[in-house]
Amino acid sequence: MSAGPPTVESVLALRDRAVRDATGRFFVEGVRFVITADREGHAIDALVVAPDLLHSAVAEQLVARRRRTGTPVLDVDDAQFRALSILGEPQGIGAVVRQRWVPPSALRDPHHNALWIAAGAVRSPGNLGTLLRTADAVGADGLLCLSPVVDPHDPRVVRATMGALFAQHVCRVSPAQLREANRYGALFVVGATPDADLDYRALSYRRPIVLMIGSERDGLRADERALCDAVVRIPMRPHCDSLNLAVAASLVLYEAYGQRHPARRRR
Amino acid sequence: MSAGPPTVESVLALRDRAVRDATGRFFVEGVRFVITADREGHAIDALVVAPDLLHSAVAEQLVARRRRTGTPVLDVDDAQFRALSILGEPQGIGAVVRQRWVPPSALRDPHHNALWIAAGAVRSPGNLGTLLRTADAVGADGLLCLSPVVDPHDPRVVRATMGALFAQHVCRVSPAQLREANRYGALFVVGATPDADLDYRALSYRRPIVLMIGSERDGLRADERALCDAVVRIPMRPHCDSLNLAVAASLVLYEAYGQRHPARRRR
Repeated sequence: MSAGPPTVESVLALRDRAVRDATGRFFVEGVRFVITADREGHAIDALVVAPDLLHSAVAEQLVARRRRTGTPVLDVDDAQFRALSILGEPQGIGAVVRQRWVPPSALRDPHHNALWIAAGAVRSPGNLGTLLRTADAVGADGLLCLSPVVDPHDPRVVRATMGALFAQHVCRVSPAQLREANRYGALFVVGATPDADLDYRALSYRRPIVLMIGSERDGLRADERALCDAVVRIPMRPHCDSLNLAVAASLVLYEAYGQRHPARRRR
Repeated sequence: MSAGPPTVESVLALRDRAVRDATGRFFVEGVRFVITADREGHAIDALVVAPDLLHSAVAEQLVARRRRTGTPVLDVDDAQFRALSILGEPQGIGAVVRQRWVPPSALRDPHHNALWIAAGAVRSPGNLGTLLRTADAVGADGLLCLSPVVDPHDPRVVRATMGALFAQHVCRVSPAQLREANRYGALFVVGATPDADLDYRALSYRRPIVLMIGSERDGLRADERALCDAVVRIPMRPHCDSLNLAVAASLVLYEAYGQRHPARRRR
């Protein structure tokens, strides 16, 4: 994109995965989201502002500061902003943000409490976003996108993260690249699958962990499962067969968090 | 409804909350869902079948058995079924099912492992359905709808439960009725709210429990919170402020499940 403000059309085009991939940009809307992107140091190419829809002093200050420091601002009217928005009640502020990917080498030499989520072909943007929101809550490092179908910059994913995307690393890595990055076994790879024998609470997470999640429908693929050092299941009552994917992943993430940060005694 | 098969229009009308409330019926579609409704003994007023879309021997057997035993069957073509469906790939089978509510008196004399979820004004059908799915996985008793906005028979809610709705009780109960039903304190009411002091893992759930959940945006209302014997929070890393509602509730439900069904030793 050029140094001037973008056009409404070019922002709208970012709804398209192919355009996001080609430009390396994505559009994020909402006060909370733009403030978080700014605070977490993401590169904001441009802001999009509909003054009549924007009722947030903090966001208005951000816009004024960004105008002063040279960030291009596309001023639009209500109808134009609504056309860009996926929300019923748009908040009148959005940003074109540069995607920030880390390379697979970021997985090398993990710290003691490293915690990555590796996602196979997760189909639901809501599930992926919710998963990232929990990942951020437990202080995870980020998301490894094992499958090309996973796009953390999809506007519906970003929405479901509630801004957590901006505090998480994202890394596109094939199963083969993950195997290579982890060739010395510094990361312990845990797969979650209903057909595992091991109760997820019976594993120690007090080591660098990659939690691997398959697709909603098919679970872990063979090449994903082959990377796992252990596979765990979430126990449930008899004859019950499944949990929502983001819930299942969140339970494992919180088990890891709980083992690393034990609660005080019960009362 | 009459004893004959319903019309397409009357089934379509069940998308409307007011029609569901007035008729006490709801429409559920999909092989897994209809089979579960049948297996769990729900009253099926009528089946809706599009033979060209239905590719499940088990579902076809169910239809044949139901035809023999007098359940009205509305035979429709693909286009008619697609008009009734909320899915991209409809499976050609649906059922008009009677809503099955239990009265607030069902809360009296709870068993030792009683576990109910009480929902305030939860807005997202996906959240409510996901919550019910986890409730079923941990063997909970059911859902208390504290707020009139909560409709467990909304097709989007039913969808997100993946059929778990049919194995859970549902009860419409105001906060005042809940207080009355629990006047001897047999149920321990736990509210989940980010501003609580008590870590959710530091509470004992080895007693009859009601887990109370507020709305996504506003959390617990004052009259809901006033019913709580304890309020708990989910710990998270500093500066992180929230989890998805269904994830937060699922974590508490699994903490209860875990205390009631401890895992074997870690390895």
